[in-house]
Amino acid sequence: MQEKEQGITVGKDKDFSDWYNQVVLKAELADYSPVRGFMVIRPNAFKLWENIQGYFNKVTEKRKVSNAYFPLLIPESFFKREAEHAEGFAPELAWIDTGDKDTDERVAIRPTSETIIYDSYSKWIRSWRDLPLRINQWCNVLRWEVKQTKLFLRTREFLWQEGHCVYEDKEQCDKEVRLFLDEYQKMCKELLAIPTLAGKKTDAEKFAGAFYTLTLEALMPDGKALQMGTSHNLGQDFAKVFGINFLDKNEKEALPWQSSWGFSTRLIGALIMVHGDDKGLVLPPKMAFNKAVIVPILFKKDKDDVLKKAKELQKELSSFNAILDDRDSYSPGWKFNEWELKGIPIRLEIGPRDLKAKQVILVRRDNGEKETVKFSALKKKVTEVLDDIQNSLYAKAEKFLKSNTVTTKDWSEFKKGVKKGKMVLTPFCEKEGCEENIKEETTATSRCIPFDQKPFKGKCVKCGSPTENLVYFAKAY
Amino acid sequence: MQEKEQGITVGKDKDFSDWYNQVVLKAELADYSPVRGFMVIRPNAFKLWENIQGYFNKVTEKRKVSNAYFPLLIPESFFKREAEHAEGFAPELAWIDTGDKDTDERVAIRPTSETIIYDSYSKWIRSWRDLPLRINQWCNVLRWEVKQTKLFLRTREFLWQEGHCVYEDKEQCDKEVRLFLDEYQKMCKELLAIPTLAGKKTDAEKFAGAFYTLTLEALMPDGKALQMGTSHNLGQDFAKVFGINFLDKNEKEALPWQSSWGFSTRLIGALIMVHGDDKGLVLPPKMAFNKAVIVPILFKKDKDDVLKKAKELQKELSSFNAILDDRDSYSPGWKFNEWELKGIPIRLEIGPRDLKAKQVILVRRDNGEKETVKFSALKKKVTEVLDDIQNSLYAKAEKFLKSNTVTTKDWSEFKKGVKKGKMVLTPFCEKEGCEENIKEETTATSRCIPFDQKPFKGKCVKCGSPTENLVYFAKAY
Repeated sequence: MQEKEQGITVGKDKDFSDWYNQVVLKAELADYSPVRGFMVIRPNAFKLWENIQGYFNKVTEKRKVSNAYFPLLIPESFFKREAEHAEGFAPELAWIDTGDKDTDERVAIRPTSETIIYDSYSKWIRSWRDLPLRINQWCNVLRWEVKQTKLFLRTREFLWQEGHCVYEDKEQCDKEVRLFLDEYQKMCKELLAIPTLAGKKTDAEKFAGAFYTLTLEALMPDGKALQMGTSHNLGQDFAKVFGINFLDKNEKEALPWQSSWGFSTRLIGALIMVHGDDKGLVLPPKMAFNKAVIVPILFKKDKDDVLKKAKELQKELSSFNAILDDRDSYSPGWKFNEWELKGIPIRLEIGPRDLKAKQVILVRRDNGEKETVKFSALKKKVTEVLDDIQNSLYAKAEKFLKSNTVTTKDWSEFKKGVKKGKMVLTPFCEKEGCEENIKEETTATSRCIPFDQKPFKGKCVKCGSPTENLVYFAKAY
Repeated sequence: MQEKEQGITVGKDKDFSDWYNQVVLKAELADYSPVRGFMVIRPNAFKLWENIQGYFNKVTEKRKVSNAYFPLLIPESFFKREAEHAEGFAPELAWIDTGDKDTDERVAIRPTSETIIYDSYSKWIRSWRDLPLRINQWCNVLRWEVKQTKLFLRTREFLWQEGHCVYEDKEQCDKEVRLFLDEYQKMCKELLAIPTLAGKKTDAEKFAGAFYTLTLEALMPDGKALQMGTSHNLGQDFAKVFGINFLDKNEKEALPWQSSWGFSTRLIGALIMVHGDDKGLVLPPKMAFNKAVIVPILFKKDKDDVLKKAKELQKELSSFNAILDDRDSYSPGWKFNEWELKGIPIRLEIGPRDLKAKQVILVRRDNGEKETVKFSALKKKVTEVLDDIQNSLYAKAEKFLKSNTVTTKDWSEFKKGVKKGKMVLTPFCEKEGCEENIKEETTATSRCIPFDQKPFKGKCVKCGSPTENLVYFAKAY
């Protein structure tokens, strides 16, 4: 058999965008769809999404959030009730052609579900006893983007989770808006091995209809920031327009406070970009379903013995879902490339000589380091190496973020930093007009106003107005 | 506080349809949506769906099926490629209004995903080495039904899983088409405690575009059959029109065989109908997330001691996710009704006298039987009772199915049976015209041709043509 074309043909540093597309397609993570702007999430990537779902469902269970499912289609009148929300999403809505259908008004495919969910909440909430109400939905959403498609990062349909909570007062709401952002940050760190910057969005960048938005921002290797998740305090506006009221403990009618928070399959794009290398995908061990692959090196002599031992090792490593690649039709070298492309954290090679020496060769995907490991020590060693890979990937990404963050008060330094693909921390006035000017001149946007800043008084890097905050700016996806 | 209106106000035997709607709404399983024909799946029911997903994901993993996700929107031209498939789904499609959008052709929301998935398969499959290919998708689908909405049973949008497999030859395909139906039947029995009849659909009732369809049918208490899952051998037609070819082991180009199989959130409707009673939902223990609820009977005297013990018992029963209902604002009687309505399999009552006697009162949801159980024996007893409830519910449903199945060769007996809400097994010629006549006269449709029939020669109950098969008929949802 002709072995099919393999491997990434461009360096990550040479042409990042081409490199990214090649990894996504060749590692069989996703594919384009015949309908422009849509994508197919292939099993290799869907497994990653299921891993994220499994992790996060444990978080929501602990936080007393229940999963539910709300309708795909939203009536036009619902969007119109909250003016900012309507304006924000109007350009991206896909409407259903109800020509010969029986609906009374136009309906659109959900771009996000605040409106359709809060209509239900208005029926379900009566008393303070019904609060807090915390519901999460895993679903597909559709936003008719006009920009060019980028698999996982910018597609018209994507998968996400959206949490929607209702509280008696602002204090509880504020607390949990922050709590779910913190959970996102922890997940990015512990599971995806991606460091993030957390903070508040400026008014220009907040969610359409929100009182305020908290965000997590990561820096990609090409110097662009990627929003990893957001958590919004929606205030009381949605409650007002959707008629959500409750009788408080004093039997008085009151308006609740609401929040929503979400992350999407875009996280998979971040994972690919942050950790991948010239050989393809690199999976942090906690994200890898198959954490190791065993490649037997087979010659005619001792073939059966080597295979038998390889099978024993696979069984021993079953808690790591170790793959045994015993296919006859591919060479060991081809297999090495294949599993490197797909990002499996550890490769174990075993040939006749290894069998005699009671050892395997262990190769790390992240840095290519090889070592021999005795059979008797293998399971323990694999556990240790997987831990070390997970930690090393995070440390490397954190080092990258730190060394590509600059702090400056100076406008020409700011421009230089943005141009070089840095995350720039700078005094900023938070005025929309000023932010617009910065964007026009540099294409950078504000990413977040970091939490817990030291007391500071300075002048906006652009307009010179007095400000008390430092704000992160960068180009963004 | 005014205690809110509780409980089902109509008997299951009195007005089955009203009873069903009341259980769905009052047990907070689902709610209507502002867009006609759509539903909200509330947390209580979504938990049931997640339970089914968890069970079935283990089955697919064992059967080497991978999960993936394909686009929501399908181009018009795709539907047209397979004529029967196109005709079958055309009336139920919802089209996107692409007036000011940039798509080249109309796109519809998926009613099922054969076409969009097989377009991808045509790109991914090259060689026999790529087969069998087995992919499953959990997603929402939309079919613009015109009949009246029935929560879980007939809604325009529903959730389901759809498996799509590709094989080298008919033999493998046949084998696994049956295998997945068998897995469905096992799941209905072991998890949902619902007995089903398995068999093949007649041509009139098979899936649009299929070579043949296998089905599982259950009989609801109102005498209507409900299709619980189907598994289709799609033959080679889709492969032909979507250009799926592979090089076989002899290096020759060949057309593969394909299958698809699915079940939906309709299973939750079946669960409610089959097991529920005049007090509300009855959950088979394996379907219940919270398998027990502890209701402390609190008086001023010994209140703290009773509560303390109740908490200890909750901890002891944590593997059953036991709820402790220690709410002050509701009476024990109100709580009993509440948890009966919601179908929790076991209720444990503990008051001051029980505390002294070191016992609880255990009440079974399925038959209302009460017994006292010593603290020391509780965990073991709960395990046993849960097992017994699971088995009893299945046995009861099986008895119902058997006592409501009649076998007849006689047309007037056939009509009488159908009218009385029986599942009628009868000799039938399998001709479409004859089936249409039966439907017009009785409203009954063929449900399935059971597998493994004894050799039989007879005459069609309706038209008298010779036939070798007995076929199940019933009214159906």
